[in-house]
Amino acid sequence: MAQATAAPAADNTKKLWGGRFTGKTDPLMEKFNESLPFDKRLWAEDIKGSQAYAKALAKAGILTHEEAATIVDGLSQVAAEWQAGAFVIKAGDEDIHTANERRLTELIGAVGGKLHTGRSRNDQVATDYRLWLVGQVAVMRSEVQELIRVAADRSEAEVDVLMPGFTHLQNAMTVRWSHWLMSHAASWQRDDMRLRDLLPRVATLPLGSGALAGNPFLVDRQFIARELGFTGGVCPNSMDAVSDRDFVIETVFASSLLCTHLSRWAEDLIIYSSGPFGYVQCSDAYATGSSLMPQKKNPDALELIRWAVWDFNRSAEMRDTEGGTSSRSVLEQVAKMRTYLAAEQV
Amino acid sequence: MAQATAAPAADNTKKLWGGRFTGKTDPLMEKFNESLPFDKRLWAEDIKGSQAYAKALAKAGILTHEEAATIVDGLSQVAAEWQAGAFVIKAGDEDIHTANERRLTELIGAVGGKLHTGRSRNDQVATDYRLWLVGQVAVMRSEVQELIRVAADRSEAEVDVLMPGFTHLQNAMTVRWSHWLMSHAASWQRDDMRLRDLLPRVATLPLGSGALAGNPFLVDRQFIARELGFTGGVCPNSMDAVSDRDFVIETVFASSLLCTHLSRWAEDLIIYSSGPFGYVQCSDAYATGSSLMPQKKNPDALELIRWAVWDFNRSAEMRDTEGGTSSRSVLEQVAKMRTYLAAEQV
Amino acid sequence: MAQATAAPAADNTKKLWGGRFTGKTDPLMEKFNESLPFDKRLWAEDIKGSQAYAKALAKAGILTHEEAATIVDGLSQVAAEWQAGAFVIKAGDEDIHTANERRLTELIGAVGGKLHTGRSRNDQVATDYRLWLVGQVAVMRSEVQELIRVAADRSEAEVDVLMPGFTHLQNAMTVRWSHWLMSHAASWQRDDMRLRDLLPRVATLPLGSGALAGNPFLVDRQFIARELGFTGGVCPNSMDAVSDRDFVIETVFASSLLCTHLSRWAEDLIIYSSGPFGYVQCSDAYATGSSLMPQKKNPDALELIRWAVWDFNRSAEMRDTEGGTSSRSVLEQVAKMRTYLAAEQV
Amino acid sequence: MAQATAAPAADNTKKLWGGRFTGKTDPLMEKFNESLPFDKRLWAEDIKGSQAYAKALAKAGILTHEEAATIVDGLSQVAAEWQAGAFVIKAGDEDIHTANERRLTELIGAVGGKLHTGRSRNDQVATDYRLWLVGQVAVMRSEVQELIRVAADRSEAEVDVLMPGFTHLQNAMTVRWSHWLMSHAASWQRDDMRLRDLLPRVATLPLGSGALAGNPFLVDRQFIARELGFTGGVCPNSMDAVSDRDFVIETVFASSLLCTHLSRWAEDLIIYSSGPFGYVQCSDAYATGSSLMPQKKNPDALELIRWAVWDFNRSAEMRDTEGGTSSRSVLEQVAKMRTYLAAEQV
Repeated sequence: MAQATAAPAADNTKKLWGGRFTGKTDPLMEKFNESLPFDKRLWAEDIKGSQAYAKALAKAGILTHEEAATIVDGLSQVAAEWQAGAFVIKAGDEDIHTANERRLTELIGAVGGKLHTGRSRNDQVATDYRLWLVGQVAVMRSEVQELIRVAADRSEAEVDVLMPGFTHLQNAMTVRWSHWLMSHAASWQRDDMRLRDLLPRVATLPLGSGALAGNPFLVDRQFIARELGFTGGVCPNSMDAVSDRDFVIETVFASSLLCTHLSRWAEDLIIYSSGPFGYVQCSDAYATGSSLMPQKKNPDALELIRWAVWDFNRSAEMRDTEGGTSSRSVLEQVAKMRTYLAAEQV
Repeated sequence: MAQATAAPAADNTKKLWGGRFTGKTDPLMEKFNESLPFDKRLWAEDIKGSQAYAKALAKAGILTHEEAATIVDGLSQVAAEWQAGAFVIKAGDEDIHTANERRLTELIGAVGGKLHTGRSRNDQVATDYRLWLVGQVAVMRSEVQELIRVAADRSEAEVDVLMPGFTHLQNAMTVRWSHWLMSHAASWQRDDMRLRDLLPRVATLPLGSGALAGNPFLVDRQFIARELGFTGGVCPNSMDAVSDRDFVIETVFASSLLCTHLSRWAEDLIIYSSGPFGYVQCSDAYATGSSLMPQKKNPDALELIRWAVWDFNRSAEMRDTEGGTSSRSVLEQVAKMRTYLAAEQV
Repeated sequence: MAQATAAPAADNTKKLWGGRFTGKTDPLMEKFNESLPFDKRLWAEDIKGSQAYAKALAKAGILTHEEAATIVDGLSQVAAEWQAGAFVIKAGDEDIHTANERRLTELIGAVGGKLHTGRSRNDQVATDYRLWLVGQVAVMRSEVQELIRVAADRSEAEVDVLMPGFTHLQNAMTVRWSHWLMSHAASWQRDDMRLRDLLPRVATLPLGSGALAGNPFLVDRQFIARELGFTGGVCPNSMDAVSDRDFVIETVFASSLLCTHLSRWAEDLIIYSSGPFGYVQCSDAYATGSSLMPQKKNPDALELIRWAVWDFNRSAEMRDTEGGTSSRSVLEQVAKMRTYLAAEQV
Repeated sequence: MAQATAAPAADNTKKLWGGRFTGKTDPLMEKFNESLPFDKRLWAEDIKGSQAYAKALAKAGILTHEEAATIVDGLSQVAAEWQAGAFVIKAGDEDIHTANERRLTELIGAVGGKLHTGRSRNDQVATDYRLWLVGQVAVMRSEVQELIRVAADRSEAEVDVLMPGFTHLQNAMTVRWSHWLMSHAASWQRDDMRLRDLLPRVATLPLGSGALAGNPFLVDRQFIARELGFTGGVCPNSMDAVSDRDFVIETVFASSLLCTHLSRWAEDLIIYSSGPFGYVQCSDAYATGSSLMPQKKNPDALELIRWAVWDFNRSAEMRDTEGGTSSRSVLEQVAKMRTYLAAEQV
């Protein structure tokens, strides 16, 4: 009953899936349904996935080796166009998959159409998405590890700088500036561990799952996984492979928790750099001013530490157990962090 | 202590706020801090706000009437450039405010600089944002009301079509198709009411609040509010005006609840259009197919209603109290909805 | 196929809805399904709703007036038991509705069973829930208004106390302490307005909607709405009335935003009461200490204001436009807030 | 300035931390601040943590071995009272830590007070919380693994039952019922993996961190970690140990994702058990009825599978690659799942 009146519209019969359709698609629907503005960022992964799939089709005897080579080379040409900013999007390019396949066929002719054999956009997009996230996770881990490295270096260099430790933002006990910095580094280390642990669940191959029910041509999924660097192996169930996106949720979660930790650290620094606190001062390189209060200045000189050392030696320095505030303990934390970094080097 | 090493960088002394700065800004910081990619969508509101402010400065005797007229005309030229897609963004355009002011001064000379007198980007961006949201709320209300109107029309036209009502997705009692449709319209009506109720809290003028502590030039804020169509009057406290964004949260909330209601409605239709249900069929104009299963067809014929009318007459039609499923009651709902629409016409 | 093996279980045939069931309910299912631990807090509303419904059944000729009076009195006895903490929950009391009805029938006999005529637990729980929220909203509004009243009084009494205003937590311009306090009061006022605006959408009567398809006995829903104080009238569509819970979401949203505003205010005070800031000091009556640092003291003397007045008179006092920081302007805010309070007195 | 007027109140000087306080605590504050209603569920973990700490104090020479034994035995008595439901909460029991310590001292005298030496409620509650979560994670993993085991067994037993696979809730390709069931099991396996991976980050010992700055008595934290089964070792930084709660967020996240997966599975079953679908039927043991529609019946007979096998043999059975729908492939999935279960046996 919810039969909408047809607007002047595109001819469905020319669509890949348009066989049985007699009505036209509303232009608004075309616009509402298109995903290219979002998924074009997956162009590189889409092409890599297709190249691996072409090889797998050859291995399974569906393509000749000449056909597969032609497709692989054609896809490299398409990639070069994207790389150079020269790829031209055309009407009808619903998503990155159809855009790349359309261009491939323009470049190498009808054999390009064989690439889609046994593959669905359902397993294709899941593969692209996972490949892309594997790359993003590597970037995040590399940057987090660099941040930890800087924190460890600064903690070592400034291990004798003291400051008040706060609870309820009330002065509590004297601690080392480095101890405060390493407390944040400890949280970043856990963030890095989370990214490490989720990787095998992201780096799992959906390709070969078809639309939902698997691939009828016996393509070698383990081969494709190796080609694409899916270290977590292949998705064990085709319905799960095309429908679940928990690998995205998990990555977003871990990234968000990292952001939360960075936010806590920034909040500490904001309070420490306020006029009344004045423990730290932002470099001009990372500060801005005010248009209405041009006279406004963040304190020129930074009052670093004003607390006496003597009571620290009688209190904090004795907190020498693992994880404590003593110089030895802080340097031990630095050493452990470096060991971790060495082991987890991305 | 968190003194970052300076990278090759922009000269802060040329910045609006750069007076006391001696170091340069890190190019990464420039990029991290720029908001123009986001706030350029506020170009029209930023210009309208500035035009009203120029008039208020003239009214307060800060500008001559000639100066104000020059600024207002110059801003109209800037608007025309944005409208035509001819506005050229330049390095140093940190945000929409500096971009528009920079261009204004290029067009009309030094008098353009007087526009910023007593104004801060803090009250300026809050004003722009509110003006923009007032427009967005009007668009949403108009579209929701159109959807309600269509639902009311269809409910009237198809009032005799029966279907099973479900609880726990198990067949429960026979209802009218129109009753189901009006149940969703009732939720959309509340969404529209929420957008109506929050408008006075969005349409309140922050301009004249300065950076945080008010405007020293006694600009007539009521005048500016009237000029800009802020029907909710002026923000009563300058610190609140520049710091709180609850008007955004509230609008996002109301929009999200609307989306939730549209999602429930869509989910009902998806289930009703499944093979086993088959109550509705999407128009070809709003459907797509499958690349892997080109043979796949959504059912050609739509089995609209298969339940006998007799037991409906003995059950549903008797549910004739207000809000019930009887024909009279449904048409009464339609009439009330139309009364509401007439009263709330945007 | 998902046929679970039956565990030793309760006899479904004795359940209100158990007619056609031959298997027994798993005790785990009984436990999983019971809502009494949650919904017993609705006891008073459930009884009020039932009393109004009994009267409506009498008005519709379904009950005699004697039967209705018996039911109303019996329900009052049940209420007295809850009030006194003497209500005894028995096995089989699935929810507050069956608990109250079971007890009613024990007290007044079989006539108690007539109360359920034409009513479903679906419209009953929606009615209870709305009634309960109407009461909660009144409590919240009353407390928010009291908080605003205290803030207005303190702002008036301490209007000459000055403090630095902050942006980016850096000293910016001098403001009045009262101006800061009234900035928070302005946000609480909007919170109160939101609670006021949503009330008509909460205070709308679902009773008479049955399970989903309305009430076949022509009970006078307007009468019930008046009896129960549903100032928003009756729900216009029975399916919407029993299925949508947007009135809950909206109330939770408004309450959350209020909490967010209280949280911002608390955060300001926490920073202002830190050692380095020291603008405020908590009363001992609202402070706690530390078990490990018994020597720890929050500053005994409160350094209230240390900034000179002269530059305030030359800067802040001139910010005399509406909503500004001048004494006149702050007192004007106080007066407006009082006018609002008088008009919105709960 | 935010000096609240004192209400008739408790004498702070008797509090553990009350030394320097001269004012009394407002009874409302006492109530607002008490956490016992929440944290009493940690009674067992609080006692275990204290017993391990007493032994560590003895090892560090702070307590004699006799004193430590007296404390450990006394704590066992307190635990026995909680276990028996005989623990009596008294006024002044702010939280589970003070409640247990107060009772311990009543039982064994002043020596009980020595237990708190060098310990803060900050590191104590973090330890209790982590210990409790370690137990909860074990329970969740055990139940998830049991669910996977049942799914694997049913998948094996019913491997020849066919059903339509859906995309967009439209009939797509025929699959095995078992394949659908294993698709959910695959998601539950990842949930179990997540719980496994986060455990080392939960099972890390904060005790020995004091309020924020470590423990001055050189207690052997590795010893305590081993005593309490903290397989992840000790928290490397005392400030991080007492302030971060990311281990809670991560556990809540993993649990929520598990719930999301269970919800998807339930939604599939709800649709499959609807009248029009009718693929599955709930056992009476897990179903309920309707009070208003006692005649309402869920379909007596379950139409399990109606699709022909022949086209399955020509389509689905050929999807024999890893993770596909063929009988061999499904049984392979079952075998892999069992291997995983054996390896991850909790």
